[in-house]
Amino acid sequence: MTANLDTLMTDLGRRARAAARALALVPSEQKDKALRAAAQAIRIDAGLILAANARDMEAGEAKGLTKAMLDRLMLDPARVEAMAKGLEDIARLPDPVGRSLAEWTRPNGMHISRVAVPLGVIGIIYESRPNVTADAAALCLKSGNATILRGGSESFHSSQAILTALSGGFAACGLPADAVQMVPTTDREAVGAMLRLSEYIDVIVPRGGKSLVERVVAESRIPLFQHLEGICHTYVDGSADLEMARTIVLNAKMRRTGVCGATETLLVDRACAGTHLAPLVAMLIDAGCEVRGDQPAQDADCRVSPAAEADWSTEYLDAVISVKVVDGVGAAVEHINTYGSHHTEAIIAGDPKAAETFLQGCDSAIVLWNASTQFADGGEFGMGAEIGISTGKMHARGPVGVEQLCTFKYVVKGSGQTRPG
Amino acid sequence: MTANLDTLMTDLGRRARAAARALALVPSEQKDKALRAAAQAIRIDAGLILAANARDMEAGEAKGLTKAMLDRLMLDPARVEAMAKGLEDIARLPDPVGRSLAEWTRPNGMHISRVAVPLGVIGIIYESRPNVTADAAALCLKSGNATILRGGSESFHSSQAILTALSGGFAACGLPADAVQMVPTTDREAVGAMLRLSEYIDVIVPRGGKSLVERVVAESRIPLFQHLEGICHTYVDGSADLEMARTIVLNAKMRRTGVCGATETLLVDRACAGTHLAPLVAMLIDAGCEVRGDQPAQDADCRVSPAAEADWSTEYLDAVISVKVVDGVGAAVEHINTYGSHHTEAIIAGDPKAAETFLQGCDSAIVLWNASTQFADGGEFGMGAEIGISTGKMHARGPVGVEQLCTFKYVVKGSGQTRPG
Repeated sequence: MTANLDTLMTDLGRRARAAARALALVPSEQKDKALRAAAQAIRIDAGLILAANARDMEAGEAKGLTKAMLDRLMLDPARVEAMAKGLEDIARLPDPVGRSLAEWTRPNGMHISRVAVPLGVIGIIYESRPNVTADAAALCLKSGNATILRGGSESFHSSQAILTALSGGFAACGLPADAVQMVPTTDREAVGAMLRLSEYIDVIVPRGGKSLVERVVAESRIPLFQHLEGICHTYVDGSADLEMARTIVLNAKMRRTGVCGATETLLVDRACAGTHLAPLVAMLIDAGCEVRGDQPAQDADCRVSPAAEADWSTEYLDAVISVKVVDGVGAAVEHINTYGSHHTEAIIAGDPKAAETFLQGCDSAIVLWNASTQFADGGEFGMGAEIGISTGKMHARGPVGVEQLCTFKYVVKGSGQTRPG
Repeated sequence: MTANLDTLMTDLGRRARAAARALALVPSEQKDKALRAAAQAIRIDAGLILAANARDMEAGEAKGLTKAMLDRLMLDPARVEAMAKGLEDIARLPDPVGRSLAEWTRPNGMHISRVAVPLGVIGIIYESRPNVTADAAALCLKSGNATILRGGSESFHSSQAILTALSGGFAACGLPADAVQMVPTTDREAVGAMLRLSEYIDVIVPRGGKSLVERVVAESRIPLFQHLEGICHTYVDGSADLEMARTIVLNAKMRRTGVCGATETLLVDRACAGTHLAPLVAMLIDAGCEVRGDQPAQDADCRVSPAAEADWSTEYLDAVISVKVVDGVGAAVEHINTYGSHHTEAIIAGDPKAAETFLQGCDSAIVLWNASTQFADGGEFGMGAEIGISTGKMHARGPVGVEQLCTFKYVVKGSGQTRPG
């Protein structure tokens, strides 16, 4: 079985590599036309997609999936239409392939340019959300990459139906048949086999919960775009305006508590703790947030429970926050670099010097001054759409959009130059 | 012993991480001053460095190192001066840290910039060339990174003496003492322990022969900047001028045969084989190059020996070349993508369409039109100096200079913005 699986996966990989070579040369207009055709195919196939999803939902309910998981799995006509619209939005983005990232002429007359080219083959490993099938495949196609999708077993039929529609649209516009492939088995071992395909897959994007990402990080021989967790911080500096701090902290924690850009720890400068700490803590508790704090936070509001050491490195993804008083911006940066996950951190401050210290000192993908950590999102950044957020430092950091799905090559144009010496 | 080694390496890593956080904030002038001070220290310590090198040379001779290895190991006053000058050259490069790589303003008024920041901690694993100690440490420092060096056992004393001089210069300018550290043991297992330090080292650069790089690729849990080999091609298109082809092919193969950018395979378009093949082959043989060819190449010159299948994927690093006739630029690209190592490829052509097909189609870090593959070098590209050449596609590709030793962060400046919805 494992031998068969490896053969199967190697074959997928080989075909993806061949498709990638062809896709790298496809002109922008053809890619965009294919994306629009795929959107139309999804609309036409909506009935089939919803029927496949009903099968997955039934199996999911029988299997006892949680309500949250069932909600992620569920498709309805509005969600199918959103998928189709998403493809059209991606078609409208500028083509990231072929951009000149830099160019210069050498004293010997050689012209050198660094030109954006596709990475090659992207592997996507995801869980129950079937819409990832369309989003991820479209972002990869836009950036000229071939895709190997490995969806969750719960959404297998939904994802297959979506892929059938997509592939029909792509093929109608002359794209290679293997531009987007899906691992045709729900065997868990297929993930392991996929993570060993370093010859054929250039980068893997794991999309899902912490346990999925942990497994992929532990096993992969292929570079990853991933974040394990978002332990994001908002630091209220002594120079912060209290009203602005209120507005931002409430949004950063409570707008959506389950997203990776939600603030998990509030740090308050001792210099303004006397005036800012109690109102901020009371506001959070009144909004339904559980607050776990250090001694000053507990002293500020009797509803605050004591924070344990583990709280400083916990991603709650829920209406819970840890609160700590720190000695100024330096101590805030130190706390964040020690306990954080290098994702997204915000400072609320009137003082530009304090802001500069924070923005420079935090070793995180995204640092914000006087704005909410919930902006950590490719769409909000104006990148169109994202395939995920990376807390790694190699190649992509922060939201991973179509530009980050490209690498580059050096193109040198000469007139007979040879190297002396 | 292994437990002690892991403790030792983890301690090195932890100290490097702390130094990296400080180095990231050091202003350009201070880094450049430190590099110039280190250059002076190397000049002052020249006697000590040469004495340490004499010890290594003696041990190397006793150990029976080859003449080529002893030449790489050997230092003399000119080579020590070249090292010092190299540090001053790196000091003169523009600071890659803090550059704004892109910036834009969102409709809600938030200003977003992508700012270059150091990667963090760079590990260098190298063999007998002691000058890598100074070059690599200087490139890493210029880009604000801390460095952990692991030199070859043959050059241990030379490298230690160079590091002592460097560190003295750096410390005199107020840089953290752990900015550059060297693994203080020649134990081979230290390399394995280093390759597991993914928490503390952000990227590893292996500098040395194929067996070293293969070991690092197989064992590392840390991203690498590396190339295993440079199987570089020069393709002579039917539209090529014969004189230009002669000049470039001779340089591409014979200028230096031991460098990674040396051409290892010559591809000749069948359309011009009748006129171009025999003169090119004769020229190479007359210049002292062994030619292994396919049937047409053998027919063109009786001194050509038959090429075996393995020749098409062999990096000779010597005065040997494989020669093949192909059916036009498409077949050349196909051959290169099948047998090459994604390093550097050149086309000699008068026809811009053929050139475009080649430059777009070759999946390699560097592609050249009418210029020699021997230009594959950071210095020749105008990047100042390089820490190596990468055939990987992630983050850095081609020559890795100070810009590629940086990552970036998103810096967002707002005025109280919160995310709606």
